[in-house]
Amino acid sequence: MKVIKQFPGINRRALLSLATLPLLSTALRSTFAVAQTLDPLPSWNGGVAKSSILDFVARVTTQGGPDFVPVEQRIATFDNDGTLWIEQPMYVQLAFALDRVKVMAPMHPEWKTKQPFAAVLDGDFKALAASGEKGLVEIIAVTHAGMTTAEFEKITSDWLATARDHRFGRPYTELVYQPMLELLAYLRANGFKTFIVSGGGIEFMRPWTQRIYGVPPEQVVGSSIKTRFELKDGAPTLFRLPEVNFIDDKTGKPIGINEHIGHRPIAAFGNSDGDLEMLQWTTLGASGPRFGLLVHHTDAEREYAYDRHSHFGKLDTALDAAAVNRWTVVDMKKDWKRVFAFD
Amino acid sequence: MKVIKQFPGINRRALLSLATLPLLSTALRSTFAVAQTLDPLPSWNGGVAKSSILDFVARVTTQGGPDFVPVEQRIATFDNDGTLWIEQPMYVQLAFALDRVKVMAPMHPEWKTKQPFAAVLDGDFKALAASGEKGLVEIIAVTHAGMTTAEFEKITSDWLATARDHRFGRPYTELVYQPMLELLAYLRANGFKTFIVSGGGIEFMRPWTQRIYGVPPEQVVGSSIKTRFELKDGAPTLFRLPEVNFIDDKTGKPIGINEHIGHRPIAAFGNSDGDLEMLQWTTLGASGPRFGLLVHHTDAEREYAYDRHSHFGKLDTALDAAAVNRWTVVDMKKDWKRVFAFD
Repeated sequence: MKVIKQFPGINRRALLSLATLPLLSTALRSTFAVAQTLDPLPSWNGGVAKSSILDFVARVTTQGGPDFVPVEQRIATFDNDGTLWIEQPMYVQLAFALDRVKVMAPMHPEWKTKQPFAAVLDGDFKALAASGEKGLVEIIAVTHAGMTTAEFEKITSDWLATARDHRFGRPYTELVYQPMLELLAYLRANGFKTFIVSGGGIEFMRPWTQRIYGVPPEQVVGSSIKTRFELKDGAPTLFRLPEVNFIDDKTGKPIGINEHIGHRPIAAFGNSDGDLEMLQWTTLGASGPRFGLLVHHTDAEREYAYDRHSHFGKLDTALDAAAVNRWTVVDMKKDWKRVFAFD
Repeated sequence: MKVIKQFPGINRRALLSLATLPLLSTALRSTFAVAQTLDPLPSWNGGVAKSSILDFVARVTTQGGPDFVPVEQRIATFDNDGTLWIEQPMYVQLAFALDRVKVMAPMHPEWKTKQPFAAVLDGDFKALAASGEKGLVEIIAVTHAGMTTAEFEKITSDWLATARDHRFGRPYTELVYQPMLELLAYLRANGFKTFIVSGGGIEFMRPWTQRIYGVPPEQVVGSSIKTRFELKDGAPTLFRLPEVNFIDDKTGKPIGINEHIGHRPIAAFGNSDGDLEMLQWTTLGASGPRFGLLVHHTDAEREYAYDRHSHFGKLDTALDAAAVNRWTVVDMKKDWKRVFAFD
């Protein structure tokens, strides 16, 4: 009776709801326990990079603290190629396009003697490189346009399910960085909404980002081509046109973020000069706590080592900017206990 | 002591958490009560429109039922002008643009004799209409471009805080339809993610959609102009250019939905021919339950009555399509107990 007296509001309904308390408190306690006692980033070695992340998240989530940020403003943006999955020896989407040219070749006998297609079919990368950006645009046009969005989703999904990276002999969706998956989950567990902001094709990523990264289609920003709406036999379709709509790279990243998200992120994660403006937009000239991070590929043994002179994922001016702006630079070799889940 | 004995697991921490129980249980109980016993759409009169909404939501949320839809696919899109707030005697954003011309006029003495600006300053709507779309584009260019996104947000927010609709004498943000606010909340309470998909300017809406509709900036799709990224004294800005980027109307709506959301909605709400393709994209040629709804403005007394021959918000081919496709048509006069919260 004593306890009842201490809680005069307790009645039959409250006692009934007490029956659900163990469930609630288990959920609360397990969240609490993970946050308090388990390492939320087990694939990260201790050091400046890891502690800068933990410190930032602690500051923005400490209610009543000077750096507290309300949940609706906890927006974090992640580049994809080289930040969440591999981009060497070439962007995965380019590997898709080259494979696709080979699949389509029997229907295009003229490609045997026509560049840049002949170069792709002959595996002649020197000739392919010589065809330059114009050649690349032609390849993207024939492999990415001329079908509905639903058809393109099926083509890319089928390819991703069967294609294997040559060096690792694994599907590309397994060549995602385990420490970054943990970081995505850790931020979400702390109230962040996580977005992908990639130079890659928006419709190339969306079919699998939920399953692999936990990021739903509506939180993916990327490059796109134009589409045309058509009613075909009463069924609406979007037909993919061979015309660029938006390039979500360099200055395109803050523009894409503004267009899709509509407010500035408080944290941004990249790995190349293509991410420079996204990190500037996120961290500079803004009030309140901000966080910028660059993944520096330093591990030729477990993955690849490249930066200032790389063809894909060049990290040069952004690396210099990181020092000036106090962005965290992750040394993959030193800071990551493992790179892939299978390591 | 008796109670403690009945709950042997109770210790000091549990007693502490008991202190938070009243808060938790109040929240749980009120959600439960609303869902179970209170009418979730109190401003809707009984009838076909209301029951079609309740029936659809019941079907897609019934676990194990034939029409169950997982939460991540419960996407609902809402037009804004004429669907969530008024669009007569003209779109609110046009009222903003005309007011803005007047504010800017002292810095542009040449406007006194230059169309379409002279027409705006003289309140000569016949001359303004005569300037056509070209005139309108000129007005939008000077009022919506030539400043940073942050400056534009301040200009529009200040205007919305002070501007009053002539007929109702109220801020535009009070001229939102109470039944539709209830519908937005009801869908969210049932696991839907609610998006705005409007022909209006995306950056005109975003500063207030969270507060008024409960829709965050990242769930607003709209028309936009191009922006340019600039570093000014080390601070990044996006400068608004007098160049159209995207028109989110008619066939632009499914294109915008695909670009921003990346999957098809299962429910769409509009009021005009500009929403026809959004409702087609949502409801036709797709498997599983789909819902389309048009608000038909039939109440000249409490709001406005218009459809097939209206200059703003013309509802003609979409009204015919509704009959063919079994979309719900809301008769404002008959179906809505009140139009505005202040009714």
